[in-house]
Amino acid sequence: MLPLLDPDVSEVAKAPEAVAPCCPPLTERPFTSEEAETAARMFKALGDPVRLRLFSAVASHEGGEACVCDISDVGVSQPTVSHHLKKLKEAGLLTSERRGTWVYYRVEPSVLSAMGKLLTISPAAA
Amino acid sequence: MLPLLDPDVSEVAKAPEAVAPCCPPLTERPFTSEEAETAARMFKALGDPVRLRLFSAVASHEGGEACVCDISDVGVSQPTVSHHLKKLKEAGLLTSERRGTWVYYRVEPSVLSAMGKLLTISPAAA
Repeated sequence: MLPLLDPDVSEVAKAPEAVAPCCPPLTERPFTSEEAETAARMFKALGDPVRLRLFSAVASHEGGEACVCDISDVGVSQPTVSHHLKKLKEAGLLTSERRGTWVYYRVEPSVLSAMGKLLTISPAAA
Repeated sequence: MLPLLDPDVSEVAKAPEAVAPCCPPLTERPFTSEEAETAARMFKALGDPVRLRLFSAVASHEGGEACVCDISDVGVSQPTVSHHLKKLKEAGLLTSERRGTWVYYRVEPSVLSAMGKLLTISPAAA
């Protein structure tokens, strides 16, 4: 029998480390190369219409989480849904937890709010 | 002789129309296909490290505007800088105005704040 992994440790804990809130507001000072790499990865993940719809489907789902089984109205196949959810997870925007047959995805609020802060207009630029 | 175009009318006025603030917070309800298309276009524009550095260089430059002549430390050629600034303008994130030899770019604050609002955590998802 395979050892049971605690999903809280193995999956959920990884994402914030992968894309720690990184950067000052975009209007504050020119980004360094490293900052730009990190932040661009997050923006890129949301730069696809299907992925953005899936993200909002998960984010707005009851309880703030959803599995592939909950998402059927985006007009793409289930494997495509899984693929995009995985990409969002790799970008640190979603965390996941396996429960039985399904992997449940949940929005990572700290990353979302860090992205929001990037887009804040600093007083100097207003 | 060519007619003179007023840059305030011909260029600056176009951008807000191109990507009018479109969408509710991502956590509020699933995006429609149209909303996702519009919002993804903005995120995608910032989903490239070089473009993101250029955007923050313009956004944080003295007076909130910059021309290609002001930007030299991103490690790409001037034509590449111009290309990326044009892409950011097409996505509605920058507006531009020609003054003499140079085109000056400026952050479009309404679009930036609309993107920030997309990333707000709604009470239902918190």
